[in-house]
Amino acid sequence: MLTIKKIATVALLSLSLLACSGGTSDEPNTSLQSTEKIKWKLVTSWPKNFPGLGRGPETFAKYVNEMSGGRLEITVYGAGELVPGFEVFNAVSSGSAQMGHAGAYYWKGKIPAAPIFSAIPFGMNALEMNAWLHHGGGIELWRELYAPFGVIPFTGGSSGVQMAGWFKKEINSVDDLQGLKMRIPGLGGEVLKEVGGLPITLTGGEIFTSLQSGAIDATEWVGPYNDLTFGLHKAANYYYHSGWHEPGTMLEFTVNKDAYEALPDDLQKIIEVATRAVNQDMLDEYTARNHNAMKQLIEEHGVQVKPLPQDVLIALKKATKTIIDREIADDPVFAKIYASYAAFYEDVKSYHALSEKAYYENR
Amino acid sequence: MLTIKKIATVALLSLSLLACSGGTSDEPNTSLQSTEKIKWKLVTSWPKNFPGLGRGPETFAKYVNEMSGGRLEITVYGAGELVPGFEVFNAVSSGSAQMGHAGAYYWKGKIPAAPIFSAIPFGMNALEMNAWLHHGGGIELWRELYAPFGVIPFTGGSSGVQMAGWFKKEINSVDDLQGLKMRIPGLGGEVLKEVGGLPITLTGGEIFTSLQSGAIDATEWVGPYNDLTFGLHKAANYYYHSGWHEPGTMLEFTVNKDAYEALPDDLQKIIEVATRAVNQDMLDEYTARNHNAMKQLIEEHGVQVKPLPQDVLIALKKATKTIIDREIADDPVFAKIYASYAAFYEDVKSYHALSEKAYYENR
Repeated sequence: MLTIKKIATVALLSLSLLACSGGTSDEPNTSLQSTEKIKWKLVTSWPKNFPGLGRGPETFAKYVNEMSGGRLEITVYGAGELVPGFEVFNAVSSGSAQMGHAGAYYWKGKIPAAPIFSAIPFGMNALEMNAWLHHGGGIELWRELYAPFGVIPFTGGSSGVQMAGWFKKEINSVDDLQGLKMRIPGLGGEVLKEVGGLPITLTGGEIFTSLQSGAIDATEWVGPYNDLTFGLHKAANYYYHSGWHEPGTMLEFTVNKDAYEALPDDLQKIIEVATRAVNQDMLDEYTARNHNAMKQLIEEHGVQVKPLPQDVLIALKKATKTIIDREIADDPVFAKIYASYAAFYEDVKSYHALSEKAYYENR
Repeated sequence: MLTIKKIATVALLSLSLLACSGGTSDEPNTSLQSTEKIKWKLVTSWPKNFPGLGRGPETFAKYVNEMSGGRLEITVYGAGELVPGFEVFNAVSSGSAQMGHAGAYYWKGKIPAAPIFSAIPFGMNALEMNAWLHHGGGIELWRELYAPFGVIPFTGGSSGVQMAGWFKKEINSVDDLQGLKMRIPGLGGEVLKEVGGLPITLTGGEIFTSLQSGAIDATEWVGPYNDLTFGLHKAANYYYHSGWHEPGTMLEFTVNKDAYEALPDDLQKIIEVATRAVNQDMLDEYTARNHNAMKQLIEEHGVQVKPLPQDVLIALKKATKTIIDREIADDPVFAKIYASYAAFYEDVKSYHALSEKAYYENR
């Protein structure tokens, strides 16, 4: 419900936005009517309109604009347009942007437990992450984690199971990982280090040239749909599956708490429901587009697609346990959130063995 | 955008609804302002507030009410409250209700191709159905199929992979299916008949007593979360997986075309985006709840959970091909839609073998 207090706050916020942005309202007079048009900035960690990842926030902005009858207009900025891709969380926290779209694992340095809300090596896939977050208590823990920063997280889409990555040489055993310089961020990188590799963190834009020049021997990115766009097949020929390190990466919409609370109830709900719709739409886009991209990579570019050997997977799984145990010991917040994650995972995995997994095998 | 024509149409529609319903508007005067409150009826094929299936439309109505600031109020009716569960489509088509929530396969008698939009035996799972519908041309074909009836379909949630069902005796081979009286509707029922069984169609409410009395030997329903509520374990002891006949059943929201087109653009978009959000929310609810229900069935009620034998699955798969080929030969519309479905399925299945399926096996 639109309370007088809220109307006043929205009016003030809208006026202050006008002041900041040099006048973006369509109607310049300051009557209550004119203040109904609110303009927000949404900063992202992706190149503008990048397939999947970048299209999600664009779709979101369109939904919100249309559902609000133009009362809430959101402008989407690509990485580097307003702030660098890794500064999205800080921008939303400080209020210099009202919203962000990124992946929670990018904030690991600031918030050690954040990666649980994007991807855990050998963890839950997209279907399971969504169930835990929306019906298993996950999103409540996520909101608690971001509350001290004045940031409210919403689910922001998923890539589905990613690919294990691009390698310049074949991986036949754990020996081939020794000293391997691979672009792989977050917990996945720490797992690689545990088995003898050298994880390196690079932004998306730096990957191709580093791989081509030989500065790195391997890289993970997303999956065929995005990797083809980046041209990674021109720099490495072996493409390994499946993405043990990111089995269902969840993206996030983040909203500045003060800006959100200043909105009337209907616009708050419009934001919530639009994030939810986009959350599924992105996964649908990846699911629909990955195959054709993979076909192009194989048939037109001669890429060799291979499964990681079982002994490599076993070593990575063992190392994952070591890394997770270390995170649990280091941070009681990580321990608390991971306990919820792990309990849900154990349950859903046991049911999916009879349903999703069994069906993939029987069909 | 709200055009003058639309304002006039909404006003007329709203007045005509008031006339039909005996005055449901909060504000009785007939000025333009008062006509902004629109009241819709949503009829469903489920018991009111039934877990999963029935909760979807309730969540939808709540979202719409809140996002529209109360301008569009939707009242949800359980099966039989306004119209019987199998009359939902006709009610929406005639305009006696503005919206419906059901499964497309219920309209097979009227529209032979409709089941493709809910479940095809050995067909796509929920992830794949969503991708085909939203990014593979599926929903456009669905809208074309329902257009002659003045009905617009939207995706309405999914149960995920269902269970194969409840059986009074063990199924060890195809011989055990001979003469088996099983409640199984739609194409799944026709496949069972093809291998020697006797498919029977019963509404949800008739299942338990028929199984208990021995009028039927077996039944499928949904999965543990719903089946536990129905108490089916009290009437049969063997619970088989996985649901070959309904591998990712898609539900549908249907909207009367005239009612939809009379809405201003923002309310149309609110309906569209809310269906999309609920579409995912229902799958999340099933994914989160099935495990505990299964645990209860096994540990508290001594239910025996078993996989269907491989030779039974092979026979059912062969029979499915026969049934689909017959549908294709009988109906050019089925043939056209199925061609799109099958091409998408072949592609996504081949990619999922390297991603989702491979990951379920490797983790």
